[in-house]
Amino acid sequence: MSGHKIATAEASPNIALIKYWGKRDDKLFLPLNGSLSVTLDAPIKTRTTVLFSEQLKKDEFWLNGRRQTEEESADVVRVLNLLRSDESRSRALVVSFNSFPSSAGLASSASGIAALTLGGAHALNLKLDPQALSIIARQGSGSACRSIMGGFVEWTKGAHQDGRDSYAVQIEPHTFWPEIRILIAIVTSQKKEVSSRVGQTRTVKTSSLFLQRLKEVDKHLSAVKELIARKDTENLFLEVMRESNNLHAVMMDSWPPFFYLNDVSRNIIRAVMEFNSGSIKAAYTFDAGPNAFIITTDDCANELKNQISRISGVEEVLESKVGEGPKILQDDSSHLIDVNAMIPVSLSPKQAM
Amino acid sequence: MSGHKIATAEASPNIALIKYWGKRDDKLFLPLNGSLSVTLDAPIKTRTTVLFSEQLKKDEFWLNGRRQTEEESADVVRVLNLLRSDESRSRALVVSFNSFPSSAGLASSASGIAALTLGGAHALNLKLDPQALSIIARQGSGSACRSIMGGFVEWTKGAHQDGRDSYAVQIEPHTFWPEIRILIAIVTSQKKEVSSRVGQTRTVKTSSLFLQRLKEVDKHLSAVKELIARKDTENLFLEVMRESNNLHAVMMDSWPPFFYLNDVSRNIIRAVMEFNSGSIKAAYTFDAGPNAFIITTDDCANELKNQISRISGVEEVLESKVGEGPKILQDDSSHLIDVNAMIPVSLSPKQAM
Repeated sequence: MSGHKIATAEASPNIALIKYWGKRDDKLFLPLNGSLSVTLDAPIKTRTTVLFSEQLKKDEFWLNGRRQTEEESADVVRVLNLLRSDESRSRALVVSFNSFPSSAGLASSASGIAALTLGGAHALNLKLDPQALSIIARQGSGSACRSIMGGFVEWTKGAHQDGRDSYAVQIEPHTFWPEIRILIAIVTSQKKEVSSRVGQTRTVKTSSLFLQRLKEVDKHLSAVKELIARKDTENLFLEVMRESNNLHAVMMDSWPPFFYLNDVSRNIIRAVMEFNSGSIKAAYTFDAGPNAFIITTDDCANELKNQISRISGVEEVLESKVGEGPKILQDDSSHLIDVNAMIPVSLSPKQAM
Repeated sequence: MSGHKIATAEASPNIALIKYWGKRDDKLFLPLNGSLSVTLDAPIKTRTTVLFSEQLKKDEFWLNGRRQTEEESADVVRVLNLLRSDESRSRALVVSFNSFPSSAGLASSASGIAALTLGGAHALNLKLDPQALSIIARQGSGSACRSIMGGFVEWTKGAHQDGRDSYAVQIEPHTFWPEIRILIAIVTSQKKEVSSRVGQTRTVKTSSLFLQRLKEVDKHLSAVKELIARKDTENLFLEVMRESNNLHAVMMDSWPPFFYLNDVSRNIIRAVMEFNSGSIKAAYTFDAGPNAFIITTDDCANELKNQISRISGVEEVLESKVGEGPKILQDDSSHLIDVNAMIPVSLSPKQAM
């Protein structure tokens, strides 16, 4: 490890039950409200290798086998700069792969930035606690701060202007509620909607309904925490669905309006409502895209998965448990070979170093 | 007229620029906020003949050639009861035809109830002013009170518990702004959503965002009135689109949620936004269905109509000017023959009388 500082980390995306939408500080990614998520299980993950080397002239970021432009690398470089101390000015080569299709609408920036933060800190041999790691990841991409932990995770919005108290904390580990399942319904989409960053700013600036949302969202976050602690599926799932509706309502109230849900998304909502007609056994939730995330329990997962799979326009349904959280891959020699293999062959030695 | 009290009236639907959504009194149809509409032009209308006769045992209501059930006739009977004085207990035969397809998503209850109120009052020789007629129509179907007048119409919410000050007033006649055009884009829909009456109650009971809407909607109504007076199309059209988005946002925030807009509706929104990319020249607005109502001016109507017609899923685009308001058809003998011809032939004399 001493000659070339290298480490590989894995992290999974997280699904927000109470959403992060709207910043009070654009540069520090300080949110206007607290949020709460569940981290996905390891099969759905981003693996990121970070190599710091004096031989690199500038930071390089490869994602899913493709070298990223300077603009596409901006979040990664920001995290690297936060990790690098003044004396260590080494540039980094970051090689990242997602195990899930990009069409899954999963926040690959969350898992990617979390894996980068953890891998980078490990490569530089920094002794950072999860709170410090979360604060760094937050500045790469807001919701990435929640992927630093497994299980059920709360991102406390904090009050300080410098962001020192705006980080994620694990409220329950993945072992707390092993029956929980998360279905990811991948939906065909032709329309390219606005990015979540652009959308957030637009909502904050233009939606008056957003003011009402802000007044109440922290109350709902407290409720969701209590319902998780009590494992009260019925009321938890109700809160989760209403939160998703509330978020997509303020998006529609923004100007210009934007719509992430399409007719397939709405047919999934209807199917979940139908499935819940006796009692609430599952919850849908949507982020900045048409794909549905459905929270349910193991005894309902198969039936629901079958029903959702049959909906026209649903391409695939992935399934996940609650994840354990990110990890550092052991840096034995076999691993190092793996890492080298991840550097695309088209890259000449000069470019790579 | 003396032997059998009969009259025929015509009224047109209205398109709300500021929407009526939410009642403070379900029985009297008293709204939680004021609303403002434009009445459509006469080719798009309901023609209703009302005949009061001692020979009828009960009220009968025929709509578009089909005898309506007791439940389907409830609104009509309520209006008839408000029109009938204590001494005149005659039952009525009401025969009503819409000139527009029911798929147009136009509030046929608004035009139908307005025509019924006017025709019924005329048949009974009641001397009622527009305000009194509007109060009666309101109790048949809320927004019908606005179809009692042509041009631009405001429904003042009123403050009294008995509804005496909740009626429509004409703020500008149809001659005020002859350049205005209303396009009606008919959209295919497979899904049957909740009725607007059920939806309204649901929103009032469950949506917290609706509270924020209520705080601001009267301010927007005042703004829209001013913008109409100034003929400020750009700002008027912006207000109209944002009001529609705001309404559909609170519908989504209701529980259970309901969605009137589908992917075709959203493609129409995108087309209007595109059309407006230089400056705002048109406004979309949606009621309790996927069909779009597009307000624009005569110089833009053709181009916009062509563009909207080309959107996949748009079946037809109707066009209307601002309407003059309802009228009573002259009760000459030829008219009386027409009326009799409107009674379906399958109806035996006994049933008809």
